[in-house]
Amino acid sequence: MRFTVLHKGDSGRARLGEIITPHGRFETPVFMPVGTQGSVKAVSPQDLDGAGVKILLANTYHLYLRPGHKVIERLGGLHRFMGWRGSILTDSGGFQVYSLARLRTITEEGVTFQSHLDGSKHFLGPLEAVAIQEALGADIMMAFDECAPYPADYGYVRDSVKRTSSWARKCLEAKTNEAQALFGIVQGGVYLNLRERSATELVAMNFDGYALGGLSVGEDGQTRQQVIRETMKFLPEEKPVYLMGVGKPQDILDAVNHGVDMFDCVLPTRNARNGTLFTSHGQMVIKNAGYADDDRPIDENCRCFTCSQFSRAYLRHLFMAKELLAYRLNTIHNIHFFTNFMDEIRQAMREDRLAWYYADFLERQGSECPVS
Amino acid sequence: MRFTVLHKGDSGRARLGEIITPHGRFETPVFMPVGTQGSVKAVSPQDLDGAGVKILLANTYHLYLRPGHKVIERLGGLHRFMGWRGSILTDSGGFQVYSLARLRTITEEGVTFQSHLDGSKHFLGPLEAVAIQEALGADIMMAFDECAPYPADYGYVRDSVKRTSSWARKCLEAKTNEAQALFGIVQGGVYLNLRERSATELVAMNFDGYALGGLSVGEDGQTRQQVIRETMKFLPEEKPVYLMGVGKPQDILDAVNHGVDMFDCVLPTRNARNGTLFTSHGQMVIKNAGYADDDRPIDENCRCFTCSQFSRAYLRHLFMAKELLAYRLNTIHNIHFFTNFMDEIRQAMREDRLAWYYADFLERQGSECPVS
Repeated sequence: MRFTVLHKGDSGRARLGEIITPHGRFETPVFMPVGTQGSVKAVSPQDLDGAGVKILLANTYHLYLRPGHKVIERLGGLHRFMGWRGSILTDSGGFQVYSLARLRTITEEGVTFQSHLDGSKHFLGPLEAVAIQEALGADIMMAFDECAPYPADYGYVRDSVKRTSSWARKCLEAKTNEAQALFGIVQGGVYLNLRERSATELVAMNFDGYALGGLSVGEDGQTRQQVIRETMKFLPEEKPVYLMGVGKPQDILDAVNHGVDMFDCVLPTRNARNGTLFTSHGQMVIKNAGYADDDRPIDENCRCFTCSQFSRAYLRHLFMAKELLAYRLNTIHNIHFFTNFMDEIRQAMREDRLAWYYADFLERQGSECPVS
Repeated sequence: MRFTVLHKGDSGRARLGEIITPHGRFETPVFMPVGTQGSVKAVSPQDLDGAGVKILLANTYHLYLRPGHKVIERLGGLHRFMGWRGSILTDSGGFQVYSLARLRTITEEGVTFQSHLDGSKHFLGPLEAVAIQEALGADIMMAFDECAPYPADYGYVRDSVKRTSSWARKCLEAKTNEAQALFGIVQGGVYLNLRERSATELVAMNFDGYALGGLSVGEDGQTRQQVIRETMKFLPEEKPVYLMGVGKPQDILDAVNHGVDMFDCVLPTRNARNGTLFTSHGQMVIKNAGYADDDRPIDENCRCFTCSQFSRAYLRHLFMAKELLAYRLNTIHNIHFFTNFMDEIRQAMREDRLAWYYADFLERQGSECPVS
């Protein structure tokens, strides 16, 4: 993987960059839709391509449990298995082990847990996480970390930072494939000196990139902003920074301003399936009766497949009638909204007007949603 | 609508034909996927196009209740509403009133019933059925009929044939749009003399085509065959014949042999969502463990989008993981199987080898399903 800063913005640490992986080139800041089980819910790889997606995230925990990384490896890796030609980042499995699995026991070697699917017993540690991600063939792998809960007391978070650093070193040592990049994950909760310690220790190990983990887990927005801003000071400018699980358009803009390059979140896909659509004027709840007779596309400024073919009235009907097509069309639109949003951010940086874009975006989002 | 017999087959009454509607030309025998609520479940109009679909069926009853035919009319008709450029046949609503709605009361004017959605009270008769179908803008409309239950005694079926003829005449009189064709529906249950009476009365009214209704409602296959064969004798060769709700590939072949031109059935779409896939060697249950490691497409002879892009292993994984993409990919394949099956039937007729095709098809379908 190669990361290059193409242009530094006029605002904060924001920068325009590019990442080249064995599966192509894309510019940063970039948003990665979430393909949990080897499928971005409700859409096909062709739909993702059409919506401008260049890289997606897949979950190691889910694919390890089902269908199993060995199966995927035998079938030629995750790209071939799911028919996706773009880049793939896999998480380490850690987050799901803490949030989904049952009966966890954490030791210095890793975590013993029970599958949320069938209660079967499993062990995941740094060595296993790297082996699984290598079998999946991810372009970018994540080191196995411990994501402390929120709130958590200082002592607990300090120990988890220590463990995360130790596991990170083991991941680097376990890695066998040069073609796959490995990112370290900075932990430390909301304790700035622990964030500093975590970042400094990981940077000393020289990862291909760094992620900010353990955020968007319940802390307030201002605290999150502060943690991001302060942590960025300890991360090298020549490596990409990935803010895990974020998020909302405004949070992405704030983080871009702090120098973050990569994002993932289930927001566009999950909201799509709930009938909440992103538009240049704010969110639209498609089931509202006002759309029953509305022949316009979701967003008249949008060029996605859904907006080019279907009306709000039809999308509302599909959603009310629980037709499966609703989930696909809504998801295509929401993903396109995010890729287009990132396009606009990069274009604004290229033209040194990110601050103006930011202000304009907020104003538009606050404006009335165009209900007929 | 214009129907032309292009070629008479070597076998039975089978014929190759073409139908031209305001939305295009297609050859018969033809299979129509079912788009109950203005969407063929799990797929888009583009998917249907890609699978070779030229005409689909939509349900008057469902669209009348939700979103309402007036809404669809204001939005430019059903084609525009759902983004489908091909032809559309709508049923009369009768069948669903008898099978889905609650608290039905049948009079000479029509049927009073309660919506299966919210219990609201409605009335549907011949005048209403035509008005709704005209509002929807169907290329081919169906006369409002009474589909007698099975079994039903002779007296009941005789009265329902009488009512169906009376309603058919009212439908013809109510029709205002020359561009929309109207088919009469032959009823009469399993009583051959009532089928003759129904067919003779409808033919005297000179419909654009004739449908065989009240079949596939519980009678055995041999009885159905006999009813079809005997009824065909009373239908004119120059009009298309549509066998409603059929069906299974072998039943389609049998009916084609008797001279039937049009078919509809939920089988390909419903089976797709249940994970049962049609192949040239019989049905495949995709969840079978044998497919977990199987890198081949569903059917190596199939040229559908799904088979060109995805393996059995991936489709099995999607189905086991309940990923929405599974339903779409399976549906595309099954619909393509049916359009390709009809292509093959027409090609066989063109080459005067339908009987050979029939024998070969049965042999292939009986053969082992290619589990690895």
